[in-house]
Amino acid sequence: MFKLYYAPQTCALASHIALEDAGADYRAERIDFKANQQNSPDYLAVNPKGRVPALVTDRGVLTETPAILAFVAQSFPAARLAPLDDPFAFAEAQAFNSYLCSTLHVAHAHRMRGHRWATEESSFADMRRKVPESVGACFALIERSMFRGPWVMGDAYTICDPYLFTVTQWMEVDGLNPADFPKIKDHHERMLARPQVRKVLDEESGRKAA
Amino acid sequence: MFKLYYAPQTCALASHIALEDAGADYRAERIDFKANQQNSPDYLAVNPKGRVPALVTDRGVLTETPAILAFVAQSFPAARLAPLDDPFAFAEAQAFNSYLCSTLHVAHAHRMRGHRWATEESSFADMRRKVPESVGACFALIERSMFRGPWVMGDAYTICDPYLFTVTQWMEVDGLNPADFPKIKDHHERMLARPQVRKVLDEESGRKAA
Repeated sequence: MFKLYYAPQTCALASHIALEDAGADYRAERIDFKANQQNSPDYLAVNPKGRVPALVTDRGVLTETPAILAFVAQSFPAARLAPLDDPFAFAEAQAFNSYLCSTLHVAHAHRMRGHRWATEESSFADMRRKVPESVGACFALIERSMFRGPWVMGDAYTICDPYLFTVTQWMEVDGLNPADFPKIKDHHERMLARPQVRKVLDEESGRKAA
Repeated sequence: MFKLYYAPQTCALASHIALEDAGADYRAERIDFKANQQNSPDYLAVNPKGRVPALVTDRGVLTETPAILAFVAQSFPAARLAPLDDPFAFAEAQAFNSYLCSTLHVAHAHRMRGHRWATEESSFADMRRKVPESVGACFALIERSMFRGPWVMGDAYTICDPYLFTVTQWMEVDGLNPADFPKIKDHHERMLARPQVRKVLDEESGRKAA
């Protein structure tokens, strides 16, 4: 059985949904960011980065959303969550996920986590002001050039879909209007209708016991 | 035949070395960042992100270093550049590469590319001052917790090695002392001794014709 460490409203949601999509045997364990639990000695022993997600397996701990998503797809091939037998198509899916983690998520992180890259309050305020533009440019590129429809990679639902859904959850708090990105907005609504997504959102929000 | 778009001193070096490691049939095409060629209409038609690397294949264009590296490993299995038949071990390699792209490279980028996330000159200066600390924390984590030795993943050379080598090239310009990271420094020296690495560095520096 896997154990997924997550915190609500973080990118761990993508891995959580993918585990549910895969029909994996797993348990989700909440980390309390308000209590700084991610930097507690117990959690740092699991993940020295002090971040979520972390997926505990019987082989060891995996971190980093794109790596966990590909691992889930490869570990549950019957769920068909990635084009596993086609290195080019697999790389396209990985490139999408890598863009979300290294560009879109990073732009978003400048709203709340400016202390990672600067020291002055004036810099944090400047970073926060730029977020609608920088995150908006990422979503515009996805809408215009990357999203194929009806799912991210085209006809087949893949590990890219829960990840896009996850970062789209942040759109409004980042000062963007979902209506400006109609394909992404439609994708988000169809994701919200999936029972797997509703189950995970209920669990993360505490509406149902884990 | 592949075509790799690169610019010197960028993360494209990792893909360039991996293609050489794989024995791939490829041509490297330089993009002139000083002339802003990455934002020219011709290049944006190849890669709408206006970044390098971009790998042109007969199926289409791939971007994002972790995706390209895994694609090279999967396309040339005889080169044994990743543990392709072991999803957990493959995910560990991918997690390492994902950390370099989304955390270490991002920290490094705040030295020269602050305009991506802020607007004021004072913020850029603040970001530049923080780079030795933020990039240094990444290398310290790699040295302490992630690097196995003699190669990144242990006994086998993988796609993680050219990527670590690439970001280690930036250590001194980021204000760090390689001697503070002895395992990474030793790795860098052993990488520099590889004929594949020397060939690629010569080509990127213009010391030999492509």
